[in-house]
Amino acid sequence: MSSNYRNFRNNVPWLILFLEAVFIVLFYFLFSHGDESRSMVSYPAFQDVNHMVIFGFGFFLTFLKRYGFSSTGFNLLIVVLGVQCSVLIEGLFYFLLEIPHEDGLKRITEAAVSITAVVISTGALLGKTNPVQLILMTVLEIIVFHMSRWINSMYLQVPDHIGMMHVHLFGAYFGLAVSSCFSEPSPRSEKNASTPKSALLSMLGTLFLWVFWPSFNSVLSVDEKWKVTYNTYFALAVSAVTAFTLSAMTTKDGKFRMAHIHSAVLAGGVAVGYAADRIQYPWIAMILGLLASVITVLGSYCLQRCLNPALKIHDSSGVHFTFGFPAVLGALAQVVLLV
Amino acid sequence: MSSNYRNFRNNVPWLILFLEAVFIVLFYFLFSHGDESRSMVSYPAFQDVNHMVIFGFGFFLTFLKRYGFSSTGFNLLIVVLGVQCSVLIEGLFYFLLEIPHEDGLKRITEAAVSITAVVISTGALLGKTNPVQLILMTVLEIIVFHMSRWINSMYLQVPDHIGMMHVHLFGAYFGLAVSSCFSEPSPRSEKNASTPKSALLSMLGTLFLWVFWPSFNSVLSVDEKWKVTYNTYFALAVSAVTAFTLSAMTTKDGKFRMAHIHSAVLAGGVAVGYAADRIQYPWIAMILGLLASVITVLGSYCLQRCLNPALKIHDSSGVHFTFGFPAVLGALAQVVLLV
Amino acid sequence: MSSNYRNFRNNVPWLILFLEAVFIVLFYFLFSHGDESRSMVSYPAFQDVNHMVIFGFGFFLTFLKRYGFSSTGFNLLIVVLGVQCSVLIEGLFYFLLEIPHEDGLKRITEAAVSITAVVISTGALLGKTNPVQLILMTVLEIIVFHMSRWINSMYLQVPDHIGMMHVHLFGAYFGLAVSSCFSEPSPRSEKNASTPKSALLSMLGTLFLWVFWPSFNSVLSVDEKWKVTYNTYFALAVSAVTAFTLSAMTTKDGKFRMAHIHSAVLAGGVAVGYAADRIQYPWIAMILGLLASVITVLGSYCLQRCLNPALKIHDSSGVHFTFGFPAVLGALAQVVLLV
Repeated sequence: MSSNYRNFRNNVPWLILFLEAVFIVLFYFLFSHGDESRSMVSYPAFQDVNHMVIFGFGFFLTFLKRYGFSSTGFNLLIVVLGVQCSVLIEGLFYFLLEIPHEDGLKRITEAAVSITAVVISTGALLGKTNPVQLILMTVLEIIVFHMSRWINSMYLQVPDHIGMMHVHLFGAYFGLAVSSCFSEPSPRSEKNASTPKSALLSMLGTLFLWVFWPSFNSVLSVDEKWKVTYNTYFALAVSAVTAFTLSAMTTKDGKFRMAHIHSAVLAGGVAVGYAADRIQYPWIAMILGLLASVITVLGSYCLQRCLNPALKIHDSSGVHFTFGFPAVLGALAQVVLLV
Repeated sequence: MSSNYRNFRNNVPWLILFLEAVFIVLFYFLFSHGDESRSMVSYPAFQDVNHMVIFGFGFFLTFLKRYGFSSTGFNLLIVVLGVQCSVLIEGLFYFLLEIPHEDGLKRITEAAVSITAVVISTGALLGKTNPVQLILMTVLEIIVFHMSRWINSMYLQVPDHIGMMHVHLFGAYFGLAVSSCFSEPSPRSEKNASTPKSALLSMLGTLFLWVFWPSFNSVLSVDEKWKVTYNTYFALAVSAVTAFTLSAMTTKDGKFRMAHIHSAVLAGGVAVGYAADRIQYPWIAMILGLLASVITVLGSYCLQRCLNPALKIHDSSGVHFTFGFPAVLGALAQVVLLV
Repeated sequence: MSSNYRNFRNNVPWLILFLEAVFIVLFYFLFSHGDESRSMVSYPAFQDVNHMVIFGFGFFLTFLKRYGFSSTGFNLLIVVLGVQCSVLIEGLFYFLLEIPHEDGLKRITEAAVSITAVVISTGALLGKTNPVQLILMTVLEIIVFHMSRWINSMYLQVPDHIGMMHVHLFGAYFGLAVSSCFSEPSPRSEKNASTPKSALLSMLGTLFLWVFWPSFNSVLSVDEKWKVTYNTYFALAVSAVTAFTLSAMTTKDGKFRMAHIHSAVLAGGVAVGYAADRIQYPWIAMILGLLASVITVLGSYCLQRCLNPALKIHDSSGVHFTFGFPAVLGALAQVVLLV
């Protein structure tokens, strides 16, 4: 058993090295022509998204005390592998469909947005998978995500920057689907415990995500960037307020629970992602943020009590209610606004 | 007593919910017309201020070990409530005075700058107030601050972006005034203790504020943005150097005290805020930074020994000397430069 | 001994104060004329570099548990002294050579880039020097660095923004040279120990540096900014992947070591710094990133086993392999690309 495991661990570096070699060779064939055009994405906008994915999500998941390193370190590994993979797949699509390439900065910005799906899925799997499984999942999920985006834009006529906002929905449910394939860790294990210090570091990640969410939602929108920013800001503000309110209501001693706030402050940003450029007035975004936050806190309450044990879903860091439910709400809101 | 307290705590979420409902209704009436104009404030500039208020001030106050969560979490709650409140009050002013509205991004940038006053006031009250009092203070302070701004610009002809720089002065003394209404916590309580770890996290907040201070000072200045940035940078640099010098001088073993550095590195940025667009040469800003830092460290020494016990002022995180004194110095410097 | 030491410590503030007074006087003579021109460096680009130098390097070195405060606090002191010193020396050069001054923002951006050399040197000396030595070294190193830059641009015709990228090379070897003058600390001392918590804070600094490295490399390049960004991003991505691979290969249990990742993820960014605007296709940058990371991990292995004991080099935080080797590789790559 032990020697099996050691053999297995020894494969990790070779797998990564093999992937990286394949990536470099494909880059050689796909991107060996200069593209000189000026980028449509400004550098500060790209930087915000990059910062948020590497840093915000890295610390967002540190609240389990056993996963301090895993979540920041692995997050980096998954992001850098996934971004390269995503750039390649998109390059391949463009090559096969004979569409002219996009400029370099837009390419990596889109890749950084796509990789969010994988990072969210990872949250559902913390503590159940080994590195090899995570890396294979990364590559697989990126391929499936780009196929779903392509189907969206070809058959359902969804504009590209809206299709991109499916990352949260896709990431959460892909993660849950993969999670259901693995056996549940024994409830005695201390792997899911958190300490005040680790919760504070996780708060650091949450605040980062909160601050950069307007950048994330607006980075790929073609025009009306300011409207997207503005609506996202108010949706986030209201969902933060609601998170505090509901947290104090649902606990017995009337104190705020960091776990509720952790998951519900971002709900507004997720929900408003789809329709942010169509919402005319801030109060609509605010109501959406309020609903998203309510759904998240109630969802976390119901799921942990009733649904999860029944459906045997194990969701280490609650991506189902943190990203899944608000994204469903956002998609519904978009349909309502279109009608 | 205990059941009273529980009843009281149970009111917190209803108060917040009531406020939020009022905000949404007012947003519906005040901001239900599209404004399409391009913003004068660039998005990265707004993002810097937002980042600084949520993140920098959030961690700036974590040095009291008991207030790790309170300061980061509550800070977020106060900021999001205050920003909405501030946007509404300004919208109301504009509506009553029949001035055309500003664009969306400038509106939230101004609100984010105004809320700094409340965040500073909170620093003087840490550990003495309950959530209900803090939230009511937030709303009240924002209203009073906007009235003082309005008086400044109507009767004293202070330009708007200078009037905005009163946030530090206003925040510090409003906080002290409110603080004097509450009874002092018993000196035996461990609430004011700090640990090395919490001091390091607080250093993280301080460095954040230091880095983003030039953005904060320049975000609302109409022209000569680069001069404001440049002067603020040098004032901050000199006040950091002076903070280290004075810290080593005033301690017996000649070592640096984080508490001194914590409060004095920012003094230059506060002091130079009023006059940054009028200062012609960097050496003037540098001397201002030096004086501000000296005043802060000496002030912290004198106040804690003599004045505070005499005047019965209790100031949990030293906002009096951190923000109050340098702001007074800055206001004096501005008057001297005008003459 | 003890009273000697106390006397000595008492000199620290006077030395700093004397330096600061000299700086202000020189600023008065050198920069007392308005410069109104618009800057070539955008403010967000400057902000990224500033953020990275103060914040990223501040936390990069916190992994030694004894140096939490020293590394963040001292880093700030050294940076602010060094930036003023650097601005002055450049002003003096321009004054002596009668070249018109650069605009203010470019001046402090260049100073912030130069100071990186000193910060890297400090890494080699942690725990061996006292504050007075560090401050004198800062001033000396800045002077020598500007002279080497000037020789580079006058006699070797190196363009200015490339000459600036020598910071890593210069910083690492200057630090090692200074380090060899000091006696080695006794191996029993616990000064070099690190704890999981301090390693996590150090990871925070590393991720910061990783995220902002493309800004750092592109801030001074005149045109083709986006190409520099793009190449640096891919070089960093590949070197992060390689760092994980090699870390798992060189440890016996096949687990990732934070120390390897800490030093090797940045290697690609350092190596690609010289030639980033000449590299046509991303795969070249990727191969450079791979090589840089390999050299760093192998170098760390060889140096710690063989070379360092033989040459009696003591290098507290491994700047030799973290910044020295990749910079040598980058310089070689630039020569190859030029030929």
